Amino acid sequence: MRNAFAIGLDVGGTRIAAGLVERKGHIVREVKLPTPKAAGPFAIVDAIVGAVGEITEGVHPSEIAGIGIGLPAQIDFTRQSVEYCTNLPLAGIDMRGLVMSRLKYPVTIDNDGHTAALGESRYGAAKGLKDFVMVTLGTGVGGGVFIGGKLHRGSRGFGGEIGHMVIAVDGPECPCGGRGHLESYAARPAIVRDAKAAAATYKGSGITRHAKDNVENITAEIIIKAANAGDRTAVEIMSRVGDMLGEGLVGLVNVLNPQAIIVGGGVGESCPLVSQRAAARIAAEALAGRRDVRVLIAELGNDAGVAGAAALAFEDHDSREGIH
Amino acid sequence: MRNAFAIGLDVGGTRIAAGLVERKGHIVREVKLPTPKAAGPFAIVDAIVGAVGEITEGVHPSEIAGIGIGLPAQIDFTRQSVEYCTNLPLAGIDMRGLVMSRLKYPVTIDNDGHTAALGESRYGAAKGLKDFVMVTLGTGVGGGVFIGGKLHRGSRGFGGEIGHMVIAVDGPECPCGGRGHLESYAARPAIVRDAKAAAATYKGSGITRHAKDNVENITAEIIIKAANAGDRTAVEIMSRVGDMLGEGLVGLVNVLNPQAIIVGGGVGESCPLVSQRAAARIAAEALAGRRDVRVLIAELGNDAGVAGAAALAFEDHDSREGIH
Repeated sequence: MRNAFAIGLDVGGTRIAAGLVERKGHIVREVKLPTPKAAGPFAIVDAIVGAVGEITEGVHPSEIAGIGIGLPAQIDFTRQSVEYCTNLPLAGIDMRGLVMSRLKYPVTIDNDGHTAALGESRYGAAKGLKDFVMVTLGTGVGGGVFIGGKLHRGSRGFGGEIGHMVIAVDGPECPCGGRGHLESYAARPAIVRDAKAAAATYKGSGITRHAKDNVENITAEIIIKAANAGDRTAVEIMSRVGDMLGEGLVGLVNVLNPQAIIVGGGVGESCPLVSQRAAARIAAEALAGRRDVRVLIAELGNDAGVAGAAALAFEDHDSREGIH
Repeated sequence: MRNAFAIGLDVGGTRIAAGLVERKGHIVREVKLPTPKAAGPFAIVDAIVGAVGEITEGVHPSEIAGIGIGLPAQIDFTRQSVEYCTNLPLAGIDMRGLVMSRLKYPVTIDNDGHTAALGESRYGAAKGLKDFVMVTLGTGVGGGVFIGGKLHRGSRGFGGEIGHMVIAVDGPECPCGGRGHLESYAARPAIVRDAKAAAATYKGSGITRHAKDNVENITAEIIIKAANAGDRTAVEIMSRVGDMLGEGLVGLVNVLNPQAIIVGGGVGESCPLVSQRAAARIAAEALAGRRDVRVLIAELGNDAGVAGAAALAFEDHDSREGIH
């Protein structure tokens, strides 16, 4: 049976968003609340259960296909277990079992880069594409790889970690402990690091004004805003983010030969320069015959997390029921 | 119907090998001849036709599933066209059509990295694996990616070009025109370049002896032989090849989460240090949970090209006939 709704949960380091989503990806109801991170994993489960209760009020359970939960974590998809989670105390917690025992819907959990890719595939920029790479630029760099119309999770479900491709041997340290990974050039902390290093070049500019003349107040958002307004230093910083993203994507374009690259996440979506520069780098550096790969900006924006998690629930429901 | 044999053709820059291969990968008959490169594409077709004639003498056509041809070229697999070929004059030539019009067997062409991956999957180190990455180190660096038990060719068939992942922004120039690609560190020309640069360090060593005291005579094979015998400079050079291979593979392990990496090609197979160092680099640098990916040496050795091309013919035949 084709249920009308799925519940999508986007559990982030600071915020939980829960949405009731209909089959076309429209979010009918939504609740947002702070993640009770300090209170531990069971408080997070309580918060999820409470949020789902709110958005499903008055909806008959039979209308709901299931719950999808996107987590900023490494998930063994087959076992549905949280293996590693750096920003939330969820490693080793049976998130799926705990939620399912309190809410009588099927629950599926996945990495948030994967849910973003599923969402764009079902409702966004990747609709109709069989082979594409989704890359999300935000606090970290993540993503998902679609192959033959399906999300490729890999042997344990750990795939899609595009941020952890080496693009510069002996480059700067990455939060994961490696060196010169894409994430160490293209995520928010890298943007802030580069902006602080260049502080001398923009005294009195829009950047320092937005940062209230204190370099410690600089955020990636300030730099992006300044870049979008044409500030020279900010344009340089964000151009480099795009160039480095392009360097990483060259490898994936050459190895996977996808139809398109979808650039998402807060950084990717708010700064068009990033995907433009990445596209130019791919056009210049990928092997002949695949330089025309389309580089598109993700379309779901703020809805990506919730809609993507709902897409996960629909996908899981439909594969259980044999619906294609 | 399950035919007993397929014909595998390995067309290289200097040599053509043609083999009659039975279903388990055993090469029953084989012919090798120099590639008539200077005589042009039609001479190459003539050579192929002649070689196939020799190895099929006395075999009834109904016993032959088809012909698979591995080429050092970028091939649009769906159109079965040779799009780019740097070492042989085959770009734009309808290799498949020309061979098929003269020999009445179905013909399938593919990139030689792909045929190597197909061969290892069917007969070699990757038997039974669904998700693995094959990387071939030789004159260039190539390979193939298996996903869900199938070779992933990508949207046009250009996938698997593992040698053209960027691992060092602003690194040395790659034969493809890019910079800092894996191939610019780990293929034969890079080994020779590094060995020449280090020439001062091994005066009077085994390296200079094998090279007859002339640095211009140094080949990758001399360096590998010296490394396998423990020569310090050669060990350093080949260790670096392995480290750089590892840096490239870290990205693929993080993005694709494969079960195993198969290291093949003349360089990869003759120098165990390369895969050992690559495995160590992956173990140190890949994200947690996927560091235990197996790194295996390819098993088909000198038979890889012919057996892999035959695997392609069997694969194509069986999918036409609906055999799985």
